[in-house]
Amino acid sequence: MKLATLKNGRPDGQLVIVSADLARFVSAGRIASHLQAALDDWEALAPQLSALAAQLDAGAIAGQPFDPAMALAPLPRAYQWIDGSGYLSHLERVRSLKGSKDEELQSNRPLLYQGGSDSLSAPTDPIVTTDPDLAIDFEAEVAVIISAVPMAATRDQAAAAIRLITVCNDVSLRRLVLDDLQNGFGFFHSKPSTAFAPIAITPESLAGAWRDNRLHLPMRVEVNDTLFGRPNAGIDMHFDFADLIVEASRTRNLAAGTIIGGGAVSNRHDESLPIKRDGIGFACIAEARTVEKLKYGRARTPFLKPGDTVRIGAVADDRSVFGDIRQTVTLA
Amino acid sequence: MKLATLKNGRPDGQLVIVSADLARFVSAGRIASHLQAALDDWEALAPQLSALAAQLDAGAIAGQPFDPAMALAPLPRAYQWIDGSGYLSHLERVRSLKGSKDEELQSNRPLLYQGGSDSLSAPTDPIVTTDPDLAIDFEAEVAVIISAVPMAATRDQAAAAIRLITVCNDVSLRRLVLDDLQNGFGFFHSKPSTAFAPIAITPESLAGAWRDNRLHLPMRVEVNDTLFGRPNAGIDMHFDFADLIVEASRTRNLAAGTIIGGGAVSNRHDESLPIKRDGIGFACIAEARTVEKLKYGRARTPFLKPGDTVRIGAVADDRSVFGDIRQTVTLA
Repeated sequence: MKLATLKNGRPDGQLVIVSADLARFVSAGRIASHLQAALDDWEALAPQLSALAAQLDAGAIAGQPFDPAMALAPLPRAYQWIDGSGYLSHLERVRSLKGSKDEELQSNRPLLYQGGSDSLSAPTDPIVTTDPDLAIDFEAEVAVIISAVPMAATRDQAAAAIRLITVCNDVSLRRLVLDDLQNGFGFFHSKPSTAFAPIAITPESLAGAWRDNRLHLPMRVEVNDTLFGRPNAGIDMHFDFADLIVEASRTRNLAAGTIIGGGAVSNRHDESLPIKRDGIGFACIAEARTVEKLKYGRARTPFLKPGDTVRIGAVADDRSVFGDIRQTVTLA
Repeated sequence: MKLATLKNGRPDGQLVIVSADLARFVSAGRIASHLQAALDDWEALAPQLSALAAQLDAGAIAGQPFDPAMALAPLPRAYQWIDGSGYLSHLERVRSLKGSKDEELQSNRPLLYQGGSDSLSAPTDPIVTTDPDLAIDFEAEVAVIISAVPMAATRDQAAAAIRLITVCNDVSLRRLVLDDLQNGFGFFHSKPSTAFAPIAITPESLAGAWRDNRLHLPMRVEVNDTLFGRPNAGIDMHFDFADLIVEASRTRNLAAGTIIGGGAVSNRHDESLPIKRDGIGFACIAEARTVEKLKYGRARTPFLKPGDTVRIGAVADDRSVFGDIRQTVTLA
């Protein structure tokens, strides 16, 4: 089952079912007006949503043409957005960049931060900044949306709670990261609104691409229409999504509709940009700059500036499985 | 106008209007089913809610007896919970306790952290922990609930966005604070579910007690029915709520229903516990322990253990203005 949320002038948007080929949609309004409402009663409503999806795919319902430009984030506002760090090579490269190479890397427990979830960006929303010199970066990530999980959950409880999978862009203002870290209160100003792909998909509808609590697909990342990276989200993910959910539940319950990010997708390699034929590249600029510094003594790849566009999507056979995030940096 | 959210078996509860004397309530269901819905359309709905409140207070509506034990948090789940640090003496005392006295204290800009907002505790919910040795502490705070605020808001925009004022208990697991800080990703495990008082009140209904974007009332804090502190929330609040909102909006919009905490209320003094006649005391245990360490060489006041109860409320003429938070520590 593939779900999307379309603009309707209201903060939560309109829940729709999208056909398997992403060509058509039908409103899910008579089952659940918006995605959070569906997640609040998932056991009762998912079978109804699934039956509607089957009718749409069978052609029993004609539906309407699906235009990703009409999509909001699957949850345009959420009660919780927790970003994890599944890929250790991302942490290694980003921390090295900040000159904190000696900081002990945690390979026993994943790091998590609490993100702002009150206004999650639509896939085509601009990245709005008041200052072009904040070292604007993207992070292409896989994210899952879960049902309620009790405090101190087991891995089995965590894995069973994964309801939907999608892709997000954890926009990062690198110039503010150090300030936030020095304050000791965690990321705040350095992590403005996260953007999401138009489509969220149930694990079973991803077939073989979802296994071992990981998404086994490459993340295609382009900056200004040039390939920046295609790291595989299923490779080098040290902590899987069950691990991240277990860790998030250590001291508290997680409510239905909590979104958990896997962290910037990152594969181990020492290639630098521009990306070569069959090269892997990066899912964020900070990592590319670290590799350049180590290799050439200085970073070559600039951060994003107003007018730049980043495109992010998980791909299978060159198709964008969740639809693309495509954001252009604009000055407020 | 005084609002509360009553248990009705649904995650958002039932919005009600409470009479000025907190004795009676009437359902606001025909205007807005829950508080977030009211905040989403505040300009249109607040006058209707206010008219209903006037009828209740005039006796034109009898209403039903208000029982605070039936109350959830005003927003049992919120799209955003940001806790600020309005009181510098809290930061000074807590940081000293952690042995980071040399860390530069920010008096130009308030610190903020992103809290979990997916499940905010009811005023009488237990503080549930899986481990009694986590140095369980409370923080008695004032909090405001705001309407939407644009990125890079002015102080005037920030002040005008304050819709409701209430009181909260920012439960803190001090033993995990250092881990969280060392990870560099900010508070996460150390800040489980925050609890809220039963009543949220509009600024105009607080009359003189709300001015200069501060609540000018003492916070009465008791542990196991013994007075622990009564610091005045209007005194020594270096950053007021407009400052906190301005800072929170530096790089992003804030959605309607965002809750902003003022930080643990803290007045400057060097008294230690037990609190004397006319003494001020503390709104969290960590501060009391710091003062004890400086004075006696060791901390005397223990953190909370299972079975201990903390009671928190802002008081005027010995009346609990927002109703009390009363939580007992229990082992999961």
